[in-house]
Amino acid sequence: MQLHPPYLLFLGDAKDPFSIKLARGVVDWRPELALAEFALPGCTETTGIQSMDIATARANGAKSFVIGLANSGGTIQDNWLDCIKLAIQSGMNIISGMHQSLNDIPELKQLAKQHNVELQDIRKPQQTFKTGTGQPRSGKRLLAVGTDCSAGKMYSTLAIEKAMRDSFSVSFRATGQSGILIAGEGIAVDCVVADFISGAIEELSPANEPDHWDIIEGQGSLFHPAFAGVSLGLLHGAQPDALVLCHVEGRDSMRSLTNRPLPSIEQTIEVNLQAAKVTNPKAKFVGISVNTSALEEQQALEQCQRYEDQFGLPTIDPLRHGVARIIENL
Amino acid sequence: MQLHPPYLLFLGDAKDPFSIKLARGVVDWRPELALAEFALPGCTETTGIQSMDIATARANGAKSFVIGLANSGGTIQDNWLDCIKLAIQSGMNIISGMHQSLNDIPELKQLAKQHNVELQDIRKPQQTFKTGTGQPRSGKRLLAVGTDCSAGKMYSTLAIEKAMRDSFSVSFRATGQSGILIAGEGIAVDCVVADFISGAIEELSPANEPDHWDIIEGQGSLFHPAFAGVSLGLLHGAQPDALVLCHVEGRDSMRSLTNRPLPSIEQTIEVNLQAAKVTNPKAKFVGISVNTSALEEQQALEQCQRYEDQFGLPTIDPLRHGVARIIENL
Repeated sequence: MQLHPPYLLFLGDAKDPFSIKLARGVVDWRPELALAEFALPGCTETTGIQSMDIATARANGAKSFVIGLANSGGTIQDNWLDCIKLAIQSGMNIISGMHQSLNDIPELKQLAKQHNVELQDIRKPQQTFKTGTGQPRSGKRLLAVGTDCSAGKMYSTLAIEKAMRDSFSVSFRATGQSGILIAGEGIAVDCVVADFISGAIEELSPANEPDHWDIIEGQGSLFHPAFAGVSLGLLHGAQPDALVLCHVEGRDSMRSLTNRPLPSIEQTIEVNLQAAKVTNPKAKFVGISVNTSALEEQQALEQCQRYEDQFGLPTIDPLRHGVARIIENL
Repeated sequence: MQLHPPYLLFLGDAKDPFSIKLARGVVDWRPELALAEFALPGCTETTGIQSMDIATARANGAKSFVIGLANSGGTIQDNWLDCIKLAIQSGMNIISGMHQSLNDIPELKQLAKQHNVELQDIRKPQQTFKTGTGQPRSGKRLLAVGTDCSAGKMYSTLAIEKAMRDSFSVSFRATGQSGILIAGEGIAVDCVVADFISGAIEELSPANEPDHWDIIEGQGSLFHPAFAGVSLGLLHGAQPDALVLCHVEGRDSMRSLTNRPLPSIEQTIEVNLQAAKVTNPKAKFVGISVNTSALEEQQALEQCQRYEDQFGLPTIDPLRHGVARIIENL
């Protein structure tokens, strides 16, 4: 899926900072893609960039209207429809990461056709994939894996890609909706039909120049009972040379589950390495990325040092310490 | 997906025995579901049951017309359409396991609506699933896993379910198209959206009486670079108490891949057990089911004995030796 920036980021009537995570991700990581934001009356949030109405944004070159907020049901709310229609009429494509598909709303579909713009549901891959082959591909690949979902895999890989840009030929390969919006392309791997998980990743990260690095966003965890299948297919398809382990310090139960303790870092390294070797016998871990937000500065340093001593891998909090030491280890 | 037997098994103009595998599976395992077969001129194959034309089959109670053959492209062939339409007009549902969806052919869709019958694409789950929870469920579960795809998982689980019927409360749970046709219901797990693999299996094999056994058809292999994601999600969703390892003796490369050796039985046991324990810490292997068709009778017995000595598990070829010894080990 290829998106068309620059974006007008729509914030709806968002009232808490977490709900505009999608819009904020773009502004944090690819400010050049975000022309402006646009909110409904009652919205209390902002990404901090300039605000423009739809007509002004279009006149200033905005090519896509991005639904930059999330709600609990994942539905396109009725009070967004007038804005979406106006954006279509102005000639903008519409980008959505909601569960409900833009393309399932007949009046939007018809209007988009009439104005020759695209309705892009980034959670719904439209292309057909082949099944994976496991055949080695040229080029180098780094993949983030985790002890859990939401363990910092997107943040870590974006930080690594950014820090590598000056010295390496490098691409960020997005596998989730936030990542796709930031990268402007990618495949929402958890939305692919199960038969094609690894095949989709083989297509997302094709053969490349021998020194080129693909930095591939990870998803889920091999230990998460809901999503491990996605994680394993992604791992096999990525055939990573380098793995980065992501972990959230102080989390006591796996994401969205109760009473399910996280696996140890040791287990996570062992099981991921074993599985990675199915498609890349040379796979190895190159670093550990820890979200230490639950700790004080000094405690965070000490905890990272403990992991570093235990596993012999550079261990950092990407937000606090940067990712340079992991890159040095490539 | 709930199918409606009895079936009229359509063989098209099949010219080799492998192409009518779907139809033959029903006749082998659930002859009571198959009223008759029906072939086009030029067909050289038969399942061995009586032949009837569409009108006669309908008059004798056939409720579904089953496309019981496969072709290489997975498309609904033009020369089948007249028969399919006639079956719809006679009041039969149409069942297909082809890649091309019956529901994507407008004239069939319209005709089916007009005659109030269903077009059932058994490879395309229609229901929406929840993500898995990994929560323990009551009842007992057996799952077949393999060193490879097409390693006898369906055959072994059907044989086990059949042999258990007299002494146990037992259900066969189908996860692939042939299995679904035989069981009359099930979920084609490789066609589920990746996010819902384990959730779909939790729904397929719900909580049950404490002594009830679900015998769950396995898919793929944790070592197959195309399909391991499906296998892992299925394993986590099944939370099996008992695992049966399926293996084909003498195969030198993994199915549909070249130059990829199969994992050892030892590795397959170790990795499956480790993964199974994520959702069922008490999971254990109860037997090994080997397809020994490449060996002579005596060699087959000796090879099974070698595996039995090596792994301490009852080892049989289900076709040659039956599955009783695995059931005794439950």
